[in-house]
Amino acid sequence: MLRMSSLFLRTLRDDPSDATVASHKLLVRAGYVRPIAAGIFSWLPLGVIALRNVERVIREEMDRAGFQEVHFPALLPKDPYEKTNRWEEYGPALFRLQDRKGSDYLLGPTHEEMFTLMVKGEYSSYKDLPLTIYQIQTKYRDEARPRSGIIRGREFVMKDSYSFDLDDAGLETSYLKHRDAYISTFNRLGMKFNIVSAMSGAMGGSKSEEFLAPCSTGEDTYVLCPKCGYAANVEAMITKVETRDFGNPAAMEILDTPNTPTIESLVEVMNSKYNAGITAADTLKNVLLMADGKPISVLVPGDREVDLKRVEANLAGVKELRLFEDEDFAKRPELVKGYVGPQDAKKFGLKLYADPRIQVGSHWITGANQKNKHMRYVTHGRDFEVDGFIEAAEVREGDSCPSCATPVVIDRAIEIGHIFQLGRKYAEALDLTVLDKEGKARVVTMGSYGIGVSRAVAAIAEQSHDEIGLIWPEEIAPAKVHIVATGKDDEPFAVAEKIALELERKGISVMFDDRRDSSPGVKFKDAELIGNPYIIIVGKGLQEGKVEFRVRKTGEKSELPIGEIVAHVMKITG
Amino acid sequence: MLRMSSLFLRTLRDDPSDATVASHKLLVRAGYVRPIAAGIFSWLPLGVIALRNVERVIREEMDRAGFQEVHFPALLPKDPYEKTNRWEEYGPALFRLQDRKGSDYLLGPTHEEMFTLMVKGEYSSYKDLPLTIYQIQTKYRDEARPRSGIIRGREFVMKDSYSFDLDDAGLETSYLKHRDAYISTFNRLGMKFNIVSAMSGAMGGSKSEEFLAPCSTGEDTYVLCPKCGYAANVEAMITKVETRDFGNPAAMEILDTPNTPTIESLVEVMNSKYNAGITAADTLKNVLLMADGKPISVLVPGDREVDLKRVEANLAGVKELRLFEDEDFAKRPELVKGYVGPQDAKKFGLKLYADPRIQVGSHWITGANQKNKHMRYVTHGRDFEVDGFIEAAEVREGDSCPSCATPVVIDRAIEIGHIFQLGRKYAEALDLTVLDKEGKARVVTMGSYGIGVSRAVAAIAEQSHDEIGLIWPEEIAPAKVHIVATGKDDEPFAVAEKIALELERKGISVMFDDRRDSSPGVKFKDAELIGNPYIIIVGKGLQEGKVEFRVRKTGEKSELPIGEIVAHVMKITG
Repeated sequence: MLRMSSLFLRTLRDDPSDATVASHKLLVRAGYVRPIAAGIFSWLPLGVIALRNVERVIREEMDRAGFQEVHFPALLPKDPYEKTNRWEEYGPALFRLQDRKGSDYLLGPTHEEMFTLMVKGEYSSYKDLPLTIYQIQTKYRDEARPRSGIIRGREFVMKDSYSFDLDDAGLETSYLKHRDAYISTFNRLGMKFNIVSAMSGAMGGSKSEEFLAPCSTGEDTYVLCPKCGYAANVEAMITKVETRDFGNPAAMEILDTPNTPTIESLVEVMNSKYNAGITAADTLKNVLLMADGKPISVLVPGDREVDLKRVEANLAGVKELRLFEDEDFAKRPELVKGYVGPQDAKKFGLKLYADPRIQVGSHWITGANQKNKHMRYVTHGRDFEVDGFIEAAEVREGDSCPSCATPVVIDRAIEIGHIFQLGRKYAEALDLTVLDKEGKARVVTMGSYGIGVSRAVAAIAEQSHDEIGLIWPEEIAPAKVHIVATGKDDEPFAVAEKIALELERKGISVMFDDRRDSSPGVKFKDAELIGNPYIIIVGKGLQEGKVEFRVRKTGEKSELPIGEIVAHVMKITG
Repeated sequence: MLRMSSLFLRTLRDDPSDATVASHKLLVRAGYVRPIAAGIFSWLPLGVIALRNVERVIREEMDRAGFQEVHFPALLPKDPYEKTNRWEEYGPALFRLQDRKGSDYLLGPTHEEMFTLMVKGEYSSYKDLPLTIYQIQTKYRDEARPRSGIIRGREFVMKDSYSFDLDDAGLETSYLKHRDAYISTFNRLGMKFNIVSAMSGAMGGSKSEEFLAPCSTGEDTYVLCPKCGYAANVEAMITKVETRDFGNPAAMEILDTPNTPTIESLVEVMNSKYNAGITAADTLKNVLLMADGKPISVLVPGDREVDLKRVEANLAGVKELRLFEDEDFAKRPELVKGYVGPQDAKKFGLKLYADPRIQVGSHWITGANQKNKHMRYVTHGRDFEVDGFIEAAEVREGDSCPSCATPVVIDRAIEIGHIFQLGRKYAEALDLTVLDKEGKARVVTMGSYGIGVSRAVAAIAEQSHDEIGLIWPEEIAPAKVHIVATGKDDEPFAVAEKIALELERKGISVMFDDRRDSSPGVKFKDAELIGNPYIIIVGKGLQEGKVEFRVRKTGEKSELPIGEIVAHVMKITG
């Protein structure tokens, strides 16, 4: 039983000044976590219980699916990560350190390498497969901008699993098994979620889906088709373009467009000076980027912005991507800021990538590669060729669903899980093979599956709270029942204690506010802030032999005879 | 149920080449752990279960004592550790690193600072105390020589607790409460242990005891009085010297002792040339040390070695201690190697520390501070004064118990727990005060209490094994019952499965060797190596309706009717 008279807990009246999202504010105010450094938190007793509850649910669902738990260190030698190139690729997000002998180590951000090597060490035959192993473990990523409390921290708890199969069909089966286990897990955690197509990103591999918990303050943006159910992370959203016949445009024509370095100013001058009757959608935006130190130009319609995250996710093999800066323009005087056009790209040695909307045959008003000049009728396939199509433009609410062309909606969410057909990348790099039926060595194919465990605590809080506090699902709450005794007399405290003990005997966890020196108002506020699902108040009603029963989530209140309260709780908590 | 047909486990026939202690050999061979780097291990499924079992027992006993669980990060900012000076003091054993912004961090070796700050953040009144909070968490120490497998690793799991009290009496109560909780814990873990007096060492503070698990390969040496039960770590063993009257020795006399740089050669020359009739015990050994860069001389009787660990533990405030090396002698030509004596110490500016056996009034044969010369009748208090007495000489079996003078025995052990009256060191450094009844700020006094959780797994293995494998106590074993089905027919497997399911339904954990392609010999060997406490063999006996029941620890075997086996297991596991 958690007795508030001795519980190591002090709730706070004010939101922490640096908190922007509800879960961060409430988890600090209600005494679940405390900040230690940027993106690094400690857990107070209530937080430990909630975190362990999340861990327990995940572990039970993993075990039920037949996955086996192992455990790796967080402090890892460099060598395996060098073999897969991740020692470099991970960039500044990897915590690197040296031991007293000067050997290089890292703090594991994920453990693909270690799992691969572990299986390599134990198994050698196709008969040993399939295998799925997992761990619940502390991970480290030196985030550039740790934020939103424990949602994006630098030290965090993750459940990561890896599947090992002989062939692609096996991987598909292991993948679906994990997908099902995740659905059960997040359902038990009381979360609302969508499963969306995702990019495989830096991890390599092919098929990948994310479990997203919708939430207005989430960092992830995803599209959802209200008709067919298509769902994708914006990075993975596919642009579907209707093929059109653009006829035979006139030859390119140079135009005098003074002071038009922006699309807006260009449209105004075009319409006022040339009476062109155009909109931004008729102009071509040339966005110059540095991709691993080399300049590229990304073409999108003038009425769309480039979404750098989409470009990054879709531009295979690029490690560092950034916008052109003034000094890049200074080094390349042929690229005239505000007046760049694709027609001279070959001459300039500039790679071109086009959003799918820049169809072959389409013609555009675009920069003339001279200050204060533009050109029109610049035609794709005639006046310029691109090096590739790429998903580059921002996704907008109302864009066409790639599957059924219905206008999609856009929502924000927190990524709570990620499942992933890794394929053979890690097995190849670390030489994980097994002998097949014919005695031939075959490279194993892998899946990787993650759940943000500490993040889930915050995501649940984010989805389940109101303006006065947290509202935990039964499986996660520090206690199922919060009993408040009020008044100056001993009787309510004695009655409350009796109810508490009876509930605990029946296996119902209880938090008992047995503080004698706090007012009823303080106690009610704390109960609401802390967020246990059911509240029993033992106080004034005692005169009529009654206690009050409240459901935190609905605010529903009822009066019950003392003798019936335990049975009532048992019925409700099932 | 753990089914060996799919369990991620491969036992090994051979000991790992670098293993010197039984727990290391067996935990690797039986598939509990695997090495990743020096002092860094991963845990396979059986290891995870054993480790979690140890954690569970510890957590249950902590909770039962009313201690509350919190959780800290392992990645910690430098600042609090700088305030207590431990950032420097910890030396090369501290893993230090920087984040992407160049800020200094460390991987926590223990969390005194963080606990102190946590309590400071939440509590402010004497009414809030006493408080004891704990965590089970991964810790890091860059050991110079990681060894003995998981007994002395560089990443390891520890339970660390801290108590907070207003005054010394409160601390004593908290300390004893923890002591009791540790006794219950180690009893439940099935360990043999002694509670011995210990030095407080680098941690500061006063009273301190260690829980030592006796074990011939242990790193710790301790003394035990067979009569009165006095027990102490050798570092903390107190030398009791009977006061003697040494009379009035003759004046110091210089002797010609060619080629006598060692005690042995000195004794020989003294007896042959001067017919002195002496033993090594009549000579004085002057051991020169560098203590934080300053030379000191430690005096012990010639028949005893200096125990550097004892000197280090008893020389307050010294961070680095080492023996004089040739270059130190070269810089100090007045200190003649092999011929040093205390009589010129003041002249040489040399600090002197004497073992208690070098009583005031005692006289000695010692170096004359000239090559090939010694002196005799060099008398403590007349010819030299010491800067302090210090426990410096090695402890020997048969030395007198400081409490009852009985000859003590010496044994080796693994330190599995440490309890500690820290006092106000950390609270003062980090300004943890509470208001007392009179409204005056008072510095809180603290205790610190540790259990090596991962180490306990190894210590249990070390105490409980035989030449064929591990023998786990019931609380720790991966499964209580190990069922082996043998033969080519389906029947034994079907019967074994039925028994397994029935046991699991009754809450008895089972490991079921359901492998169809392994020989009975392999299965028996694996069962013995893995070390679950009870083994049921379903095989040949089936013809007579019987199964075999074995107790792993005693080797006791019995035949039982199939229908009685479950009841028998229930009775035995109680």
